[in-house]
Amino acid sequence: MELPQRPGSRLDSYVDRYAARTRGMTASEIRALFAVASRPEVVSLAGGMPNLAALPMDSIATVAEELVRESGTVAMQYGGAQGDETLREQICEIMRLEGIEGHPDDVIATVGSQQALDLVTRIFIDPGDVILAEGPSYVGALGVFASYQAQVVHVAMDDQGLVPDTLRTAIASVKASGRRIKFLYTIPNFHNPAGVTMAVERRPEIVEICRDAGILILEDNPYGLLGFQGEIYPALRSLDTENVIYLGSFSKTFAPGFRVGWALAPHAVREKLTLAAEAADLCPPAFSQMMVSRYLSTQPWREQIKAFRAMYLERRDATLTALSELMPAGVTWTKPDGGFYVWVTLPPGLDSKAMLPRAVTARVAYVPGTGFYSDGFGASSLRLSYCYPTPERIREGVRRFADVLREEMELRAAFGHEASRALESREGVDTPGPDLA
Amino acid sequence: MELPQRPGSRLDSYVDRYAARTRGMTASEIRALFAVASRPEVVSLAGGMPNLAALPMDSIATVAEELVRESGTVAMQYGGAQGDETLREQICEIMRLEGIEGHPDDVIATVGSQQALDLVTRIFIDPGDVILAEGPSYVGALGVFASYQAQVVHVAMDDQGLVPDTLRTAIASVKASGRRIKFLYTIPNFHNPAGVTMAVERRPEIVEICRDAGILILEDNPYGLLGFQGEIYPALRSLDTENVIYLGSFSKTFAPGFRVGWALAPHAVREKLTLAAEAADLCPPAFSQMMVSRYLSTQPWREQIKAFRAMYLERRDATLTALSELMPAGVTWTKPDGGFYVWVTLPPGLDSKAMLPRAVTARVAYVPGTGFYSDGFGASSLRLSYCYPTPERIREGVRRFADVLREEMELRAAFGHEASRALESREGVDTPGPDLA
Repeated sequence: MELPQRPGSRLDSYVDRYAARTRGMTASEIRALFAVASRPEVVSLAGGMPNLAALPMDSIATVAEELVRESGTVAMQYGGAQGDETLREQICEIMRLEGIEGHPDDVIATVGSQQALDLVTRIFIDPGDVILAEGPSYVGALGVFASYQAQVVHVAMDDQGLVPDTLRTAIASVKASGRRIKFLYTIPNFHNPAGVTMAVERRPEIVEICRDAGILILEDNPYGLLGFQGEIYPALRSLDTENVIYLGSFSKTFAPGFRVGWALAPHAVREKLTLAAEAADLCPPAFSQMMVSRYLSTQPWREQIKAFRAMYLERRDATLTALSELMPAGVTWTKPDGGFYVWVTLPPGLDSKAMLPRAVTARVAYVPGTGFYSDGFGASSLRLSYCYPTPERIREGVRRFADVLREEMELRAAFGHEASRALESREGVDTPGPDLA
Repeated sequence: MELPQRPGSRLDSYVDRYAARTRGMTASEIRALFAVASRPEVVSLAGGMPNLAALPMDSIATVAEELVRESGTVAMQYGGAQGDETLREQICEIMRLEGIEGHPDDVIATVGSQQALDLVTRIFIDPGDVILAEGPSYVGALGVFASYQAQVVHVAMDDQGLVPDTLRTAIASVKASGRRIKFLYTIPNFHNPAGVTMAVERRPEIVEICRDAGILILEDNPYGLLGFQGEIYPALRSLDTENVIYLGSFSKTFAPGFRVGWALAPHAVREKLTLAAEAADLCPPAFSQMMVSRYLSTQPWREQIKAFRAMYLERRDATLTALSELMPAGVTWTKPDGGFYVWVTLPPGLDSKAMLPRAVTARVAYVPGTGFYSDGFGASSLRLSYCYPTPERIREGVRRFADVLREEMELRAAFGHEASRALESREGVDTPGPDLA
């Protein structure tokens, strides 16, 4: 299949023809990592891929077969832009677990909740509009916001999540600058990447601040059912039906390969989202939606979520134990009570991005903190994902990371910044050794 | 599941917060029709749904079951933003049928070719940029272009497709006005909605005109393998590898419910498309792509396309025969040699959109011509789709349409415009009678 490369064909002769918005479209740090970190010898604590090993593949194979046999001409046909009605009813049942009373007509099924993020941004953001977002925030959301030329203003979190007073200050400051805030983007539960949860007692206050300021809330909740104690926090949407757009996903509670997520929005907004979705792809895949719908109606999905929780809890514990035992002094990290991620903060002077090639050489990968900020902040932080590797591999990954970190700290202590730079140029990211762990 | 409506909740209190681009997002005329035209008593000659009755559902059920059993943890996982590599290789094989030598690395798999349209527009169009498109053109493309605030300039066709001299004139006129043309959007084969094909001898000329003018070509080819004589025309992309972005789809040659289409683009453009796709939905559904890939590798897909062709040929013949026998004098129509659509032009003074409620009352639906123009043109034309109904139903639909048309023409002849308006207010679109045909 390989065709010879014509000379020059990799030069971009279209460079003066692209739209202005493409200047915000750059390869994510996660993506640039992907090729190297996916080698089997590297312990990847970088990706956010859910672990599907616990799924009952035989049963799902039967679901797929029956879907084609019994409803093939519907599942393989175009559907409505808003998505399958039965699925939207099931989605309302799921959201009821979080205290949300939503109507199926206010739900739109999307190609993963990433598409819902894209559509909400598309209908609300003019270039230069401000979006408030936690600092750090989800890298995929920041990518969408940049592609619509939004300005992201980060709002600080503590270990109880978004800080209401900081939110008030940020709103006042942006408004004083004459810019327009369109919405607050927040991940209240088991935050990606911060690994913290917005305190329940803060939620009404944050909802009120936004309502009073005329700012919509975009509540992104892919991990809400993955709390390790089985606790389910009340959604912001359960506290305000008119000022919150809620995003959900089956990627973490079932499987991402179907790309089924959703938005629940005030009715008028939902209608606009449907028009935008129709332009984006006509309709989401009927086959995917009906697979998820049949899975929900024929399989014990609540038990499956419990199994996922137990699996991720074991991995979270392995991560925290290894960090406690192996990390050098001065390194701190969050203690997630659900979800996939731990946020690690390094001692002052260390740069997680500059260190990454050495980490990959030592056969461990993570995501540097700068990817989760739109303003260059985050150099002294990084995200560790514990969702995919086994507990043994996690421990080995943390051990390798601790070694890299210790070597880096010793070098800095002994020789300062220049020695570390020299080390950087000596070791290449392209040559990880075999994995003998 | 029905919740009581809160008063006022259907009012749009967000109206002053939407992005400027939402002003271009309006419900398509096809969509507004959908609820009524989908009633079983109505013969719908409106939609473009492929007829899936000919697909071997038992075999496809086995494909689905084996996919989950053998590759479930890959098919149900996140994939790359560019799409499945095996599928991209198979896509290159398919394109080779049309004389295209494409490299899998220059292909991106998308959520239907509609998403490819969206992504291409996203990376090239700033508000006010001009897109040239045939007049009439595909309604879904016009919707995308409007949502990115492009200005569409239509270029006339004759029964040999786009007219090169008219293209030259349009380019000169737009350039003289100081506006910037980003690309020519064209459907060379079995045009939707016009039902004509770009003459093979015109193709090199059109490619050259665009290259010389520095205008990309966006070649949309969902129907290219559905020529009734089995003839396959050379793609514009086969004539120019550097200035053409080619869009393909499995929606008409296999099934639309998987939402798998693709773009083949010059390498630098493909890279930008992948970045835009990553923002739009992270990655296309792996499950869908692998279903299509396995279908191609295990099923006789070439024979299946022949079966589709034979089925659509029978329906095309039923349509043309019925039109010849039943249409009043003064009505003309195109004679498609492939694809799904006939474009009908009414005698002067008749308005296909104004007539539509009467047609639906008479239990037949079509799409008025104005939906296929961005400038209000097309009132005296309409699109008939013959892809979905049986030949008998097509004939009955054309008979009903001919009756409506004849009544309208007689009324106009006897009483002029006012009588027709009175008729319009008497008959409601909401009360089609039972289908006794």
